[in-house]
Amino acid sequence: MIEVVWEDTQRGVTAPSGFRAGAARAGLKQTGNDIAVIVSDRPATVAGVFTTNRVHASSVAWSRRVVESGSARAVVANAGNANACNGSRGDEDTAQMAALAGSALGVPAEQVLVGSTGVIGRVLPMDLVEAGITKAAVELASSAEADAAVCGAVMTTDTRQKHIALRFRSSEWPGEVTIGGICKGSGMIAPNMATMLCFLTTDAVVAPDVLQEALASAVRVTFNRVTVDMDTSTNDMCVLLAGGASGVAVPDTLAGQSDLAEALSRVCRYLAREIARDGEGATKLVEVRVTGASSESDADQVARTIAESPLVKTALYGCDPNWGRIAAAAGRSGVAVDPEKMSISLGGMCVYRNGCGTSFDEQVAHDALKAGEVQVDVDLGHGDGVATVWTCDFSYDYVRINAEYHT
Amino acid sequence: MIEVVWEDTQRGVTAPSGFRAGAARAGLKQTGNDIAVIVSDRPATVAGVFTTNRVHASSVAWSRRVVESGSARAVVANAGNANACNGSRGDEDTAQMAALAGSALGVPAEQVLVGSTGVIGRVLPMDLVEAGITKAAVELASSAEADAAVCGAVMTTDTRQKHIALRFRSSEWPGEVTIGGICKGSGMIAPNMATMLCFLTTDAVVAPDVLQEALASAVRVTFNRVTVDMDTSTNDMCVLLAGGASGVAVPDTLAGQSDLAEALSRVCRYLAREIARDGEGATKLVEVRVTGASSESDADQVARTIAESPLVKTALYGCDPNWGRIAAAAGRSGVAVDPEKMSISLGGMCVYRNGCGTSFDEQVAHDALKAGEVQVDVDLGHGDGVATVWTCDFSYDYVRINAEYHT
Repeated sequence: MIEVVWEDTQRGVTAPSGFRAGAARAGLKQTGNDIAVIVSDRPATVAGVFTTNRVHASSVAWSRRVVESGSARAVVANAGNANACNGSRGDEDTAQMAALAGSALGVPAEQVLVGSTGVIGRVLPMDLVEAGITKAAVELASSAEADAAVCGAVMTTDTRQKHIALRFRSSEWPGEVTIGGICKGSGMIAPNMATMLCFLTTDAVVAPDVLQEALASAVRVTFNRVTVDMDTSTNDMCVLLAGGASGVAVPDTLAGQSDLAEALSRVCRYLAREIARDGEGATKLVEVRVTGASSESDADQVARTIAESPLVKTALYGCDPNWGRIAAAAGRSGVAVDPEKMSISLGGMCVYRNGCGTSFDEQVAHDALKAGEVQVDVDLGHGDGVATVWTCDFSYDYVRINAEYHT
Repeated sequence: MIEVVWEDTQRGVTAPSGFRAGAARAGLKQTGNDIAVIVSDRPATVAGVFTTNRVHASSVAWSRRVVESGSARAVVANAGNANACNGSRGDEDTAQMAALAGSALGVPAEQVLVGSTGVIGRVLPMDLVEAGITKAAVELASSAEADAAVCGAVMTTDTRQKHIALRFRSSEWPGEVTIGGICKGSGMIAPNMATMLCFLTTDAVVAPDVLQEALASAVRVTFNRVTVDMDTSTNDMCVLLAGGASGVAVPDTLAGQSDLAEALSRVCRYLAREIARDGEGATKLVEVRVTGASSESDADQVARTIAESPLVKTALYGCDPNWGRIAAAAGRSGVAVDPEKMSISLGGMCVYRNGCGTSFDEQVAHDALKAGEVQVDVDLGHGDGVATVWTCDFSYDYVRINAEYHT
């Protein structure tokens, strides 16, 4: 069981003791900082989950190897260029980024995680990257400003910074532990065993396998439950460094791992919801909660099908309580849904029950859908399976952003 | 083997001898005709494929039973109201539509196929439906005008009429056979073992099981390869009536069935492409052809994932040769794609090969994507599996149409 000491959405990866971060502009994206570095003052254990996309970026292959080694010292990340689909040249550039960051931060290159995000298929201008890394390393600090700066430096079409820190106590160990995290993500978002770019830090002392299990279990019910557009990215990664500066050790027990996972889930759920809220073109955050399914995976499948339906998402953009599209999405989800047993609520108002629409007030429902957060509840009337998926509505701006992005 | 005698996209379901059709306005949609009737002058064998959506309309359950009986005499269809999710009241209204049409056309109610399309969850105003069916039955004729009228009466957000007739000879039997077809479909289009509303007629003499097998095999590679928005409808159906007025019998052999399927595929492919071209908000028809897959089903899965990607579709709307999104979609398709062996062409121009982008001229590619039909070719470099999927681009108008549709 955990007890929250404080939670602060103005802080991020340098909130846990022993981490510093810096950002700079290399000129890879049109405006703003685009290079971020994060360094642990001491050797950290590391965990990570990565995209399952068969076409993946050089940075994913590199960072996966770093995670497999079990320890890491730093992260270097860039926005504005995904360095994906660039063949062996891309692999060399990723290794070079790690070497440059390692040299600037005074840590071994093979302990530097690399993350990239941006356009696929463009070669990295390494002269700009080198200058950017050098400048970012000079800016290293532990502060709210540093947290915001590194978060800003990994943004692409994101319109909001997404960072949080959490301090908590556990009944399983003595002392207080802090977790910090930043992430980016706005389009090409349908994490599958991984997500976008997310960098997490903690000052706890944690064994690598406990760290990995706790992270994987947190990601499964947070980032992996977000879908903006079904397009699992080539560059997704979520990595967590445990530097141990607090001296507080997470015990190598199931209960210890479970409490760490609970705290991580809290951090990741906040960041995941922020990603959905900041989906490309989004005007609102949509939480789809499916209950009464035969299993959690059935509930997830139904919730995901609803959350991915362009017809549902455009209706929500138009504040249109068109529940028939929600029923149709549930029906095509592949799960053995019984229309007679299913019920649907929008913003807490029941709109469908016993195989028919209820006589709800369409104007009241329309007004309820104008809120910045909309709750869609579907009960399947079968069993105990529950899952929540987060998404956003689908607006003109999604089309504008993605029709104009590349050329 | 078949030989085409003529093909006419101005004709439709009354081109084969022995069929008449009529349309009228009942007032179910805002403007235009919304009730269609088609009648066979003699008992016809019947085949049909229907939506796999677990939430399906009353008309789907009713028409499936008619198809199971093996023979039918008529079709009655309405637009503007899906009569789905209306409970037992919906079932009664569908039976009543069949009874009214049977009475107006002088055929047994249980031999009348019923199709409905429009908003889900609204009860049918049966007084208007009754008046409409009576008026439509008065208009019965066999002509290009009648073909166009019944096609117009099933349109919802469709912007184009979709009908065709084909006369052909087969090496497997003497004499000429004509097939006619109309369909509607523009949104909530992701047929799965079925599709939208499609009504086909033929004057051949065909046993029900041959008819069903030939239709199923044609639908598999035509309508089931269209996706506008992944949203498999609750009301999909494709039914085929063989009236036999030509006196030409399709032999009950595999070769006979195969030639009938080939001719049907030709008709259905035309209609399927017209549906994709007329996808809600579409500015262009997109044909995604995947070759070099280990199997046809792998090829289909990769092509479908590309064709469903909102990022690919918005890029095509913006005439943006952003092939990274195509590679990323192939990579997340679930098929074991090897990025090094894959190649991608846009409008016949190779843009990705050997794991990297080619040095193509982006301006030339941009201009090529301005065409009304765009070809996306992906070769996986594995085996002989091939599949083609049709879709359209994703524009502002898709969002406008679907944000404003219901309320």
